[in-house]
Amino acid sequence: MQKSPSTSSLGPGGLDLAQAFFKPIQNCDPPSSTKRHTKISVIGVGNVGMAIAQTILTQDLADELALVDAKSDKLRGEMLDLQHAAAFLPRTKINASVDYSVTAGSDLCIVTAGARQNPGESRLNLLQRNVALFSNIIPPLAKYSPDSILLIVSNPVDVLTYVSWKLSGFPSNRVIGSGTNLDSSRFRFLIADHLDVNAQDVQAFIVGEHGDSSVALWSSISIGGVPVLSFLKNQQIAYEKQTLENIHKAVVESAYEVISLKGYTSWAIGYSVANLARSLLRDQRKIHPVSVLAKGFYGIDGGEVFLSLPAQLSRGGVLGVTNIHLTDEEVQRLRKSAETILEVQSQLGL
Amino acid sequence: MQKSPSTSSLGPGGLDLAQAFFKPIQNCDPPSSTKRHTKISVIGVGNVGMAIAQTILTQDLADELALVDAKSDKLRGEMLDLQHAAAFLPRTKINASVDYSVTAGSDLCIVTAGARQNPGESRLNLLQRNVALFSNIIPPLAKYSPDSILLIVSNPVDVLTYVSWKLSGFPSNRVIGSGTNLDSSRFRFLIADHLDVNAQDVQAFIVGEHGDSSVALWSSISIGGVPVLSFLKNQQIAYEKQTLENIHKAVVESAYEVISLKGYTSWAIGYSVANLARSLLRDQRKIHPVSVLAKGFYGIDGGEVFLSLPAQLSRGGVLGVTNIHLTDEEVQRLRKSAETILEVQSQLGL
Amino acid sequence: MQKSPSTSSLGPGGLDLAQAFFKPIQNCDPPSSTKRHTKISVIGVGNVGMAIAQTILTQDLADELALVDAKSDKLRGEMLDLQHAAAFLPRTKINASVDYSVTAGSDLCIVTAGARQNPGESRLNLLQRNVALFSNIIPPLAKYSPDSILLIVSNPVDVLTYVSWKLSGFPSNRVIGSGTNLDSSRFRFLIADHLDVNAQDVQAFIVGEHGDSSVALWSSISIGGVPVLSFLKNQQIAYEKQTLENIHKAVVESAYEVISLKGYTSWAIGYSVANLARSLLRDQRKIHPVSVLAKGFYGIDGGEVFLSLPAQLSRGGVLGVTNIHLTDEEVQRLRKSAETILEVQSQLGL
Amino acid sequence: MQKSPSTSSLGPGGLDLAQAFFKPIQNCDPPSSTKRHTKISVIGVGNVGMAIAQTILTQDLADELALVDAKSDKLRGEMLDLQHAAAFLPRTKINASVDYSVTAGSDLCIVTAGARQNPGESRLNLLQRNVALFSNIIPPLAKYSPDSILLIVSNPVDVLTYVSWKLSGFPSNRVIGSGTNLDSSRFRFLIADHLDVNAQDVQAFIVGEHGDSSVALWSSISIGGVPVLSFLKNQQIAYEKQTLENIHKAVVESAYEVISLKGYTSWAIGYSVANLARSLLRDQRKIHPVSVLAKGFYGIDGGEVFLSLPAQLSRGGVLGVTNIHLTDEEVQRLRKSAETILEVQSQLGL
Repeated sequence: MQKSPSTSSLGPGGLDLAQAFFKPIQNCDPPSSTKRHTKISVIGVGNVGMAIAQTILTQDLADELALVDAKSDKLRGEMLDLQHAAAFLPRTKINASVDYSVTAGSDLCIVTAGARQNPGESRLNLLQRNVALFSNIIPPLAKYSPDSILLIVSNPVDVLTYVSWKLSGFPSNRVIGSGTNLDSSRFRFLIADHLDVNAQDVQAFIVGEHGDSSVALWSSISIGGVPVLSFLKNQQIAYEKQTLENIHKAVVESAYEVISLKGYTSWAIGYSVANLARSLLRDQRKIHPVSVLAKGFYGIDGGEVFLSLPAQLSRGGVLGVTNIHLTDEEVQRLRKSAETILEVQSQLGL
Repeated sequence: MQKSPSTSSLGPGGLDLAQAFFKPIQNCDPPSSTKRHTKISVIGVGNVGMAIAQTILTQDLADELALVDAKSDKLRGEMLDLQHAAAFLPRTKINASVDYSVTAGSDLCIVTAGARQNPGESRLNLLQRNVALFSNIIPPLAKYSPDSILLIVSNPVDVLTYVSWKLSGFPSNRVIGSGTNLDSSRFRFLIADHLDVNAQDVQAFIVGEHGDSSVALWSSISIGGVPVLSFLKNQQIAYEKQTLENIHKAVVESAYEVISLKGYTSWAIGYSVANLARSLLRDQRKIHPVSVLAKGFYGIDGGEVFLSLPAQLSRGGVLGVTNIHLTDEEVQRLRKSAETILEVQSQLGL
Repeated sequence: MQKSPSTSSLGPGGLDLAQAFFKPIQNCDPPSSTKRHTKISVIGVGNVGMAIAQTILTQDLADELALVDAKSDKLRGEMLDLQHAAAFLPRTKINASVDYSVTAGSDLCIVTAGARQNPGESRLNLLQRNVALFSNIIPPLAKYSPDSILLIVSNPVDVLTYVSWKLSGFPSNRVIGSGTNLDSSRFRFLIADHLDVNAQDVQAFIVGEHGDSSVALWSSISIGGVPVLSFLKNQQIAYEKQTLENIHKAVVESAYEVISLKGYTSWAIGYSVANLARSLLRDQRKIHPVSVLAKGFYGIDGGEVFLSLPAQLSRGGVLGVTNIHLTDEEVQRLRKSAETILEVQSQLGL
Repeated sequence: MQKSPSTSSLGPGGLDLAQAFFKPIQNCDPPSSTKRHTKISVIGVGNVGMAIAQTILTQDLADELALVDAKSDKLRGEMLDLQHAAAFLPRTKINASVDYSVTAGSDLCIVTAGARQNPGESRLNLLQRNVALFSNIIPPLAKYSPDSILLIVSNPVDVLTYVSWKLSGFPSNRVIGSGTNLDSSRFRFLIADHLDVNAQDVQAFIVGEHGDSSVALWSSISIGGVPVLSFLKNQQIAYEKQTLENIHKAVVESAYEVISLKGYTSWAIGYSVANLARSLLRDQRKIHPVSVLAKGFYGIDGGEVFLSLPAQLSRGGVLGVTNIHLTDEEVQRLRKSAETILEVQSQLGL
């Protein structure tokens, strides 16, 4: 699908310029495929996949972008719509195909595909359909790009990241879920908006399961480097636990709110995933709350479970997990999330 | 709609940090609204409007972004979805309202709103409905931002740019239609893709009416600074006029192709308009094929008509039109376009 | 000095294209100077001034850049060297002159000019010469750009920021010294390098007088949002106060080290000041440790003194100072710095 | 030289945080060196080398930057000055050493080192000293980075690019001289400044030997896609050949002018080389006038000579040379340049 039928038809008419226009120099390498450029594949070209692809393109994070989806018309339409902007952007080679061979040699594969819940369908049934879907996605990705990093965005993200790890056979540092990276951004926005500061000056983590049972780390909140809880204490400003819970609640609800208002979320998850792609591919060694193999951390010992923890990301994937101090209550919540997920996983028969 | 109910509710609970956290310095200016920052308003938050808004945000072109739409739910959903990405982007203040007062003090107003064709509706009837729509959009924009530039994206873009000029009472240099800026990009992509060169190394203009009757300027095509037609002539490479026509046809059809495949176009027009916004607001003095008051150029003397011509854009809007050499045939086509548009305009009764 | 003699001499030879090439459109605004673009002036084109100017240009922070220096040859050479890169950068208008009228209408004036210490000269004598120099710089800047922000980089930065405030008559929120913004960056680099993390994930402030008596705020150090001192305490890792002092000492010495090795510092101060320029001109509301009028903070009540404190910066200059908690020892050090500076200031007779 | 003595001395004091702060996850890859990131080496940290290094850093073109110079103090000073800006930039690993092993695994090696002319020294003698210098630079670069691209900036650039090709044993597509890329930018700036257009809208090539005998291609000049010579002809505007020669003369003289005014050139060559680095490493397939093996082009058949021609650059180096139409006079000038260079080369005994 690389050349559109229309362009390839330009040749026969007599305008086959390419050979006439460029001449090779002498004593040069034999012509070969481009080596060592950066390639990202996005699986699924729905609202989330395309917001990710377009943000990656605008931020110039890849030299090649491959799109895969089962719907060939929609897929080709999205590819052409991106390609038509070539004159406004640094050059990125954009391909698309229903066939996974188009992803060969990717440095990063981002999976956004997922089944939608049918009316009356149980969550377990939906999950089983998604596992079936992933068993058609992950093995070909792993086959065509055996050295790539897998970044899972589809929901439920923690279980599907575990599933992808199992299906790929990849080492755990190269299988990551977008997890609570976006939840944490919403947390930071709400605090920044309230104080009228720049959200990039707000540090605040939400960890654990992506969704309703996520865990807000209150002691992690700082503004311009000032820890907020100790600031309040030093200033003898009283605050009630309920207030903090309300902020967390607002974060959890804000995703539902966007969905109820516009029907889906797209832009923020697009920026969030592009942000992770940059840290990974440009070897930034930055710390992000993402879904990683959590076994062995904070007393999570019951089994192989993926949960969001503050992880340092580099060109090789996950470098390590920050060994932060959690309160007993936070540890309890994390472990409870882990148990719930493990129970779900046990029903999948992987 | 600036503060979400959720954030403003954080205060009462005891966490009203802002006053405690920052203290003003002595001898400073009285607090005032931010002066001289850059503000862009986007009218219409459909696929086109949001692709524009998101690209403007990613490319950091504005300090403030205001969104307006008649559908308040959709509008608020899109605003929140952009705001949630605050931690991943330079700070941009994002507001949204059904009320045009939110656009006050804009440097640039981008209009993407438009009525859709009803089954069986004539093109003239559709246009009349759009004129009615614009009579509710343009006057409040002009009132709240009397010094702004109007950039019209809605179709039929040439007539609606004329309508906006009339309704705004603005000087002609501050009313611009996105016109054939995108058609020209598609033209450049098709040529670049065929030759495997960077589209930014391809110069090629499509001018005239945006749409089927647009005029491709063959003599304007150059690659890496090499004029293609004289190159072919010098190399004694034959080409047939039909081949060139086929390329132009492919450009015209590619918009229809994307619509038939994905249902609408969004990304490429988003990049195209963000590209114009940059040239305008950052005073770039670059030359773009956009819809401008064409009266007096190339023998277009029948009346006040807007058509795309290569125009130099700056912080003050249109600086001038490039006085290029057209063939007799090209001039004929331009004039014919102008006459068709003028006839349509005469039926609008403005 | 806008047009080089060489270019203006192109006209007479017959190639006066401009009039022929562009034609104005009808009904447009009368031609006027570009309004509301962003203009930065840099005073002093030595190593520091030019590193700042070049970084501002690369980061596309201004639409116009004006350079001023007393040495007209060096000045013109630096202007031409920047202008010659026009094809590789977004368009920025670059002017240079020994006359301050070239700075008219600046949004930000950055002062890097300063006298060098003569052999055997006392610090007070050097300072008095710098005050004399500033009395020729600040009044014309204030006259030509009465609404601008003054950003002082010359050393001793705290006293000269005070001097600039007095000489300009500006409100205190529009007179800022680059202060310890760079010291804090060196602090963050040393910690990040030691832990092999991204320096942007390290928060750490150095405040107070820029130089040997600066104050490191140990409780402000956090990595990826994790406060380091409480982390160490929670992990029951012992550390000695001497270790912390050594880090601070390394920061203070690193400036001297660079000077002893290459003769001056340039790149890091260039990035540091460009970073402040971005926060100010793009209205980022970010928190930076910069030199501001410190009277009334932390018991500094003896007089009008400028010292670095964590300040929130916006398009209007300083919005406020972060009301952080300092230890008694830190407060003592700050006050001692303030007293030393006040004593020096009292000898200046302003 | 990776860790400064000061930072490594932080550990013993008790603050060895790294092990405590991060814990590896289970089932992960064995720790390995970062793979497939982008590395650039700059040889020579004088004004030109550092302007290149700093621009590459600001434009975020590399994940790792290595600096080499014979003067270890200056070298370490420049490295530290760049490193101190870490908090203001995306993370780039910056190393420096007098030993070429620091360049191992580079994707691009940029050579700016060169001997200066001694009083009374003949040009040939100077060249022979530079060849001797290069025989200590190129072989270790080729040994440590056998797959890299060599980009030569030192003067006389065309002969030294040939010398580097011979000394490296690299295929010709991976040995490039910065050549007339900067001359062409100055050409474009002078034209753009005269017409008050954006220099990025001006296409214009200078080819041939870098320096006094360079060849301006008049037919390549176009503005906003409009070929200027045919425009003038169509508008019946007379121009004299002398006028065009004056523009070319102004380009050649502008380098000398900057040197006479500020003592050296730095910023424009820094941007020019960073621009080439981007096209090469981000696989942009853009066309640049750079010094390539010119044998076989335009009747240059006398021997292996490097000259600037419009070349398409990609991740693999030179893809090909644009087969433009030159006038007989232009061909004559090119051939004469080639002969002069070949004669010089014959005296080098390589």
